[in-house]
Amino acid sequence: MRHNVLDKINNAADVAYLKIDELNRLAGEIRDKIIDTCAANGGHLAPSLGTVDLTLALYSVFNPEHDKIVWDVGHQAYTHKILTGRKNRFHTLRTKGGITGFPKMSESGCDAFGVGHASTSISAAVGMAIERDICKNDYNVISVIGDGAFTGGEAFEGLNYAGNIGKNIIVILNDNEMSIDKNVGAMAEYLARIRIDPQYNKVKKDLQEFLQGIPYIGETVWKAGGSLKDGVYAALTPGSLFEFLGYTYVGPLDGHNIQFMKDVFQKAKGLEGPVLIHVRTTKGKGYAFAENEPDKFHGVGKFDRQTGTLIKKKDAPPSYTEVFSNALIELAGKNNRITAITAAMPSGTGLKKFSSVFPDRFFDVGIAEEHAMTMAAAMAATGGRPVLALYSTFAQRAYDQLVHDVCLQKLPVVICLDRGGLVGADGPTHHGAFDYSYMRHIPNLVVMAPKDENELRNMLYTAINYDGPIAVRYPRGSATGVPVKDGFEKLEIGKGEIISREGKGIVLFAVGSMVKHSVKAAELLKEKGILATVVNMRFVKPLDTALIDEMAKDAKLFVTLEENALAGGFGSAVLEYLADSGKNNIDMLRFGIPDKFIEQGSCPELLELCGLLPYQIAEGIEKKYGEI
Amino acid sequence: MRHNVLDKINNAADVAYLKIDELNRLAGEIRDKIIDTCAANGGHLAPSLGTVDLTLALYSVFNPEHDKIVWDVGHQAYTHKILTGRKNRFHTLRTKGGITGFPKMSESGCDAFGVGHASTSISAAVGMAIERDICKNDYNVISVIGDGAFTGGEAFEGLNYAGNIGKNIIVILNDNEMSIDKNVGAMAEYLARIRIDPQYNKVKKDLQEFLQGIPYIGETVWKAGGSLKDGVYAALTPGSLFEFLGYTYVGPLDGHNIQFMKDVFQKAKGLEGPVLIHVRTTKGKGYAFAENEPDKFHGVGKFDRQTGTLIKKKDAPPSYTEVFSNALIELAGKNNRITAITAAMPSGTGLKKFSSVFPDRFFDVGIAEEHAMTMAAAMAATGGRPVLALYSTFAQRAYDQLVHDVCLQKLPVVICLDRGGLVGADGPTHHGAFDYSYMRHIPNLVVMAPKDENELRNMLYTAINYDGPIAVRYPRGSATGVPVKDGFEKLEIGKGEIISREGKGIVLFAVGSMVKHSVKAAELLKEKGILATVVNMRFVKPLDTALIDEMAKDAKLFVTLEENALAGGFGSAVLEYLADSGKNNIDMLRFGIPDKFIEQGSCPELLELCGLLPYQIAEGIEKKYGEI
Repeated sequence: MRHNVLDKINNAADVAYLKIDELNRLAGEIRDKIIDTCAANGGHLAPSLGTVDLTLALYSVFNPEHDKIVWDVGHQAYTHKILTGRKNRFHTLRTKGGITGFPKMSESGCDAFGVGHASTSISAAVGMAIERDICKNDYNVISVIGDGAFTGGEAFEGLNYAGNIGKNIIVILNDNEMSIDKNVGAMAEYLARIRIDPQYNKVKKDLQEFLQGIPYIGETVWKAGGSLKDGVYAALTPGSLFEFLGYTYVGPLDGHNIQFMKDVFQKAKGLEGPVLIHVRTTKGKGYAFAENEPDKFHGVGKFDRQTGTLIKKKDAPPSYTEVFSNALIELAGKNNRITAITAAMPSGTGLKKFSSVFPDRFFDVGIAEEHAMTMAAAMAATGGRPVLALYSTFAQRAYDQLVHDVCLQKLPVVICLDRGGLVGADGPTHHGAFDYSYMRHIPNLVVMAPKDENELRNMLYTAINYDGPIAVRYPRGSATGVPVKDGFEKLEIGKGEIISREGKGIVLFAVGSMVKHSVKAAELLKEKGILATVVNMRFVKPLDTALIDEMAKDAKLFVTLEENALAGGFGSAVLEYLADSGKNNIDMLRFGIPDKFIEQGSCPELLELCGLLPYQIAEGIEKKYGEI
Repeated sequence: MRHNVLDKINNAADVAYLKIDELNRLAGEIRDKIIDTCAANGGHLAPSLGTVDLTLALYSVFNPEHDKIVWDVGHQAYTHKILTGRKNRFHTLRTKGGITGFPKMSESGCDAFGVGHASTSISAAVGMAIERDICKNDYNVISVIGDGAFTGGEAFEGLNYAGNIGKNIIVILNDNEMSIDKNVGAMAEYLARIRIDPQYNKVKKDLQEFLQGIPYIGETVWKAGGSLKDGVYAALTPGSLFEFLGYTYVGPLDGHNIQFMKDVFQKAKGLEGPVLIHVRTTKGKGYAFAENEPDKFHGVGKFDRQTGTLIKKKDAPPSYTEVFSNALIELAGKNNRITAITAAMPSGTGLKKFSSVFPDRFFDVGIAEEHAMTMAAAMAATGGRPVLALYSTFAQRAYDQLVHDVCLQKLPVVICLDRGGLVGADGPTHHGAFDYSYMRHIPNLVVMAPKDENELRNMLYTAINYDGPIAVRYPRGSATGVPVKDGFEKLEIGKGEIISREGKGIVLFAVGSMVKHSVKAAELLKEKGILATVVNMRFVKPLDTALIDEMAKDAKLFVTLEENALAGGFGSAVLEYLADSGKNNIDMLRFGIPDKFIEQGSCPELLELCGLLPYQIAEGIEKKYGEI
């Protein structure tokens, strides 16, 4: 496809001068570019295809170089990126050193606010509007938020505050009936009701005229003031819930009709106070495979554009997610108190399969991690055995509920943290870099990480049979490829295992994904005549202090290895124990994620950046050991 | 006052047999008991006085031994405690070993769920309703939530989910127009509108009959289906926002009319699906001083019942909160980019004074810590200098936003964490025990804690002039009493100070509140002929590694002291540095909060429990030094 119109666009301001037929052609060209790039690099295809027309209409009226546009979550902002000076680098999307998959302030002056996690955009927009008015600036502030992100509590906090403070902001509700999977909750139901109502406009007009014409009732109604008048007004607009919350509601609009949206945005620009524009879009719009399977093409790996088939590595081992999914189904078949909870990630966490086998014991609460954690606590408090599967990075949202609702009450909630460690192309907003650190200081919590598929199965089994809060953390992507055994084995809480007892002078204590790398590093060291013992710690908390004591007898160097921040993480826990027990004579070398945010790249690239590949571990140990 | 009725009540079930005049007398007797106890012990007087009648009506219909009643926040649950087997121990409220100030599962089988932080009760109620239905139990599930807690995002997440999942739950909205201070936000506005509408019932009836009688319009409306019909129904009920979200709305009711509430609760018991009952109460009801100043009597210290005056220690130094408050006003007078943000705590954080001096630069966002953090980030991103004052324990709610919005973008938000460390009578839900640990692993964040009033002033000044995310953490209650100096001094980031250089063998590295105790401990040691150097580290992050290096030259024992969890805290950071720099030959002794949740008590009692009083520090050091 030729990109005749796109070729002429150098920045977003150019869009304002295009005629409607050019805009429509441009939409097609941009879709073409997005599909091509995502096919080659992977990416958030379906969300970004859904907002091409919306973005073009928006930038025909507003200028992102002047106005502040906050794209909630940011995975729908590829058109924004292409229009704001990044079209020629767009092919580097999500690669190391390339442009990022989300808006990022340091990447472009047009990226008003960095995003990645959902539901922050209204809060950000209000903050910008406050500063604008303090400084008497004149920029417009716009939040573009999906109906999925709209279920997140922070979105409501922002909506509630912005609806009352009286600042001029525009909230564009990009309603596609999806978060990543099908959207849930009462708000979603409400939006569904107001989305389709063909009789609406006709009847509204009739009723309005009619009521005003009635001598007694009409007058009474308008004189009534207060709630009844509000209520009657409410009856006359489809988005009255938003009107109640202080917004001028406009919609629902067809989010693929550029001209119509342009006209509405132009009018909205002049309105006083907060405005909510409800736009209906289709996820994956313009690419049939993505329209038909928007969840599959939400955040997608490389794929064949012609056939829509994903390009998978041949004979790749199953992912940890799949192993978790199958194990949980197996365990739930034997224990009917087991339930599974996800926060809008049935596919990503592997629970979709569980939901088809046990539909009555599966709960997708939408993007609502706080609610999910408290709800799980309450289920455990009433005798249930809830398994809450979250991405590590999104579980950060529920830190307080983990402390206050789950651990303080010592409730048996099983917390499965997927995407622990470095996640690759999604970059710093999505790495699960902090979970050991934010969990291990919470009293009563057990924190585990499996070395392979079978250990994940056993940890899940152990967790379900443990009478207290317990977390299992595992990484994104393929597991190790070991043959998966039948049955389950209960692990002793707080007990590690010796993987290979070679030399006694050097002991590698590894957790989770780093066990594999540690074994390889020990092999590399052995080739150089340096013998090292490798321990799989299994538990970040409680620590296997007996095993540490045993290893400490002859050791000169302890090495800790974790795919987590070095600050406050697993290695730090080992240090604390050594100091408290007076074993500080042993030298320590800690491998982990350094104290900075790690950018995007492939996982091997990022592991190398952090010095976590086996050759780097071996080199580091050799050097340190030489210095002792 | 004699407690003739209360004397006969042994458990909540007894309430169901009382006649209305006995219930009204009982309400008075319970108020008397609550006022007396709070006057002696301090406590959440105004919230608990507001719900006496509501609780009596509720327990006339529901039985907390069978039904699950979740009291949101829990500070309004004193009547619940008195009625459920704790009336004879009520005088021990909030004291060490006494009954707690909040519902707590381990204290009573009638406490269905532990609370303390706001906005969790709907989520908990849904979880319980799910388990009830899985297990085919028949208990009722009720969330009692204030309009203040209602602004919290998690409350909306719960409301949204419960409104759609179709479980039988009852949400009682206890609407008193307050969180701790006056409530804010669009929801508060909405509730205010529906609260008062005398004409409402009459007009509603007229309109309903009228519409049904109109041949054309009436028919069209009812046939229309979808949003218009919903809208017209909405017009006929005051709580249509809740109806939109899937609830049967009932209200607003007079929350001090026991008989009326009983009747409504009885009817609500039989309804299918989620029900929201809107009850209007008066905070502080029945005690004039509390009714007139509900914020002062929200969480109150000891007071004189007759005069309503607080009993303050004579000549107590100013609190850190006051010092912060005055310093910020002073600084904001010189820098017009400074703004102040609180999440429903203008009084508690000391910002009320700021709000009267700089009303246009003050933002109370309600109970909405997530929103507050993101909004602050956005204000900083657009050139402002926001100062966000939160309680340490409530800031846990905004951990993800601190990581994702503030620190990842390296934005200059000043985070002031009040109530850092042990807070005393409020107990484990409210201690600020984890903040060093949950902050110090976040890249780009500077974490400080002042040793006294002047250092707090200087840290605030330093923070406001620092170009990145920076947190200052200080404790609840009186500061040290040093004379407050004029002016401000900019501190060098990451630089500590030597307080007293005595012996070189032992070095005490203290932060924040522990500096004072360390100085005293060193004095006690000196009396025994043991000389120790005391360092005020000031910065938990970045560490003053140069100072550590200098101290390490001659030291045999390093001692770290912090009023924070030992796991992953300040001492842990020092250990990491020593290990990384090969200085592990120095023995380490760490003082801090052990790895368990700390119960309620006075601050000195709790410090003693944690071994943090000067005599304990001195003893510990003497013992350890003897072993080296």
